[in-house]
Amino acid sequence: MALKNKVQSIVVSWWRKNPLLLSTSRTLNTSATGYDNQILKSPPLVSLDFPDVWTSSSTNYNPPSIHKLGSDEKEIARVIDGKQIAEEIISAVGVEVRRMKNTIGEVPGLGVILVGERRDSLTYVRNKMKACEEAGFKFDLTQFSDKCNEDEVIDAIMRFNTDPSFHGILVQLPLPQHLKEEKILGVLRLEKDVDGFHPMNMGHLAMRGREPLFIPCTPKGCVELLIRSGVEIMGKNAVVIGRSNIVGLPVSLLLQRHNATVSVVNESTSNPEEITREADIVVSAVGIPNLVRGDWIKPGAVVVDVGTHPVEEEGGCEEGGYRLIGDVCFEEASRVASSITPVPGGVGPMTVAMLLCNTLQSAARKYNFV
Amino acid sequence: MALKNKVQSIVVSWWRKNPLLLSTSRTLNTSATGYDNQILKSPPLVSLDFPDVWTSSSTNYNPPSIHKLGSDEKEIARVIDGKQIAEEIISAVGVEVRRMKNTIGEVPGLGVILVGERRDSLTYVRNKMKACEEAGFKFDLTQFSDKCNEDEVIDAIMRFNTDPSFHGILVQLPLPQHLKEEKILGVLRLEKDVDGFHPMNMGHLAMRGREPLFIPCTPKGCVELLIRSGVEIMGKNAVVIGRSNIVGLPVSLLLQRHNATVSVVNESTSNPEEITREADIVVSAVGIPNLVRGDWIKPGAVVVDVGTHPVEEEGGCEEGGYRLIGDVCFEEASRVASSITPVPGGVGPMTVAMLLCNTLQSAARKYNFV
Repeated sequence: MALKNKVQSIVVSWWRKNPLLLSTSRTLNTSATGYDNQILKSPPLVSLDFPDVWTSSSTNYNPPSIHKLGSDEKEIARVIDGKQIAEEIISAVGVEVRRMKNTIGEVPGLGVILVGERRDSLTYVRNKMKACEEAGFKFDLTQFSDKCNEDEVIDAIMRFNTDPSFHGILVQLPLPQHLKEEKILGVLRLEKDVDGFHPMNMGHLAMRGREPLFIPCTPKGCVELLIRSGVEIMGKNAVVIGRSNIVGLPVSLLLQRHNATVSVVNESTSNPEEITREADIVVSAVGIPNLVRGDWIKPGAVVVDVGTHPVEEEGGCEEGGYRLIGDVCFEEASRVASSITPVPGGVGPMTVAMLLCNTLQSAARKYNFV
Repeated sequence: MALKNKVQSIVVSWWRKNPLLLSTSRTLNTSATGYDNQILKSPPLVSLDFPDVWTSSSTNYNPPSIHKLGSDEKEIARVIDGKQIAEEIISAVGVEVRRMKNTIGEVPGLGVILVGERRDSLTYVRNKMKACEEAGFKFDLTQFSDKCNEDEVIDAIMRFNTDPSFHGILVQLPLPQHLKEEKILGVLRLEKDVDGFHPMNMGHLAMRGREPLFIPCTPKGCVELLIRSGVEIMGKNAVVIGRSNIVGLPVSLLLQRHNATVSVVNESTSNPEEITREADIVVSAVGIPNLVRGDWIKPGAVVVDVGTHPVEEEGGCEEGGYRLIGDVCFEEASRVASSITPVPGGVGPMTVAMLLCNTLQSAARKYNFV
């Protein structure tokens, strides 16, 4: 497939131009594995972490070649209305917040830290703030310029850590390259990690018999959408495209906990179309606009599109004259799938709703409020 | 497939007979998710944890229907000699231990806790003890009857936790049903968790950019075998059959870190044969003797068999007159695969070798010994 090959050639050429990144990482981490490097052939794991070249970029935007519907073709997919479901959930959260306030005089509090001025991050944070206000949460935003240093960000986290009126803390990702994400997120108190990105949460999400304190918001939103749409997960073949720590990985772990048979397609997969075509449930969180075409989808499959890519376009309906598109070519996939989430208005609003649920859950846990 | 259907009918009938187990688990864990239960449709994750009916049992032993080799059939698979590779590794570990002793006067120490008298557990512990002695480790075994209480086991762990001459602690699993595995393993100090079963280690194993303190021994042994056998993992389709916390899950995470496209087959998978037939690398850790037949394997695939099942048999070569067989029907699979690990003598010895590597690594880390 042309686009796939294009992506692969970008990956290979990027990596050929940047061998240092791999070798540096290998050198840096030798000490972590110590003896293994002398005795075993297995390398340190971080040395295997190829740069994730499947990042969001509208430069890869390939408009689909839409043709007029023939007599044997029609749009059959039900469009899953994430916006409406999210609104229902946020409204229900609001009811609980009022009950909490009336009963114990407390409300859930969310502290957000934003570094830099990425347009998408600003939009996400604004949406979270709006939803918090709507549900009656306390909300605080601490902003830094993208030139700030690690200590400033860590200090801000520490303030939220120790302030008992904040039950959830969120560091908007991605951080600028010079800030160490692992170090910064590691400071966050586990019981306030409402994003669920702490390795301890991830371990509990992965392991049968364990319950994480918080399930990461986007994966949790995807599964809630499936359940509310009456999609059976157990025993189904699910394919997750992409394996980022914030979406692909936890969504694959969560679907496994729901007893699906899960395959994870990554940037080195040689036949992503074929594997995806076997899936009853497709979750794409890869960050390439329109990567998943109609012929990747098995007729009748359910498609959850996590990608959001701004495409500049005359008359675009979002602010600033652009429109948002997903990883999935909606026009093609909606003629093959049985259900599909749109972009915008699918997974995005659910992520915000789940953040509110996690923060409410954290506050309720702290006050033993039932 | 007959065996598959049989397994499925066992699963369904078991679950029908034991609905309480599911509902109890749901009740018990409601508090963990709090508000989610009122607002969201997503259930607590542990309520989804069906009992793993794919446990080791020789009652499921179905002898393969071996036919004489036809003119177009021959045993083509190279048999991967795990025993020899493990011996080489243990010998190399021994050299390092002597160097450590000569340089800083210390040796790695492993503390093992064994509860009950399961025949397989006794064998595993004996093998670990032998290997530790061979490599010059300090070794201590604390044994309890299967009637012991949690506090006794926890006290024993605490002694190893605080004794600076022990760098690794291992609780032989499975524990008797009345002991809570999560609680007991949770006591173990992270930096002595050489089995790598702590959720923090599992999270770091799963997340790109992170390095676990210890990779669980059996998964680490499987991948080391693949690497030493010249099997390319990156970009290959790998199928892991089984998803236990101690093998299936971590082996799937490790293969993903090695950039394979990983599918995990579980007990609810409707078409395990088809999915397995797509794999370049098959790892079976499901606990059913001879489940994986020759027609599950793609010609030329590499097969790693983690299962070990004692089958009572006249003239069996193991102690007590039984012979060990794996999850994979070796006679059939070895005619289709390009490489295959035998049982015994494949993954088993590698698990022990990796335990020694992890314990040496732990000691070296503590003394900053390079």
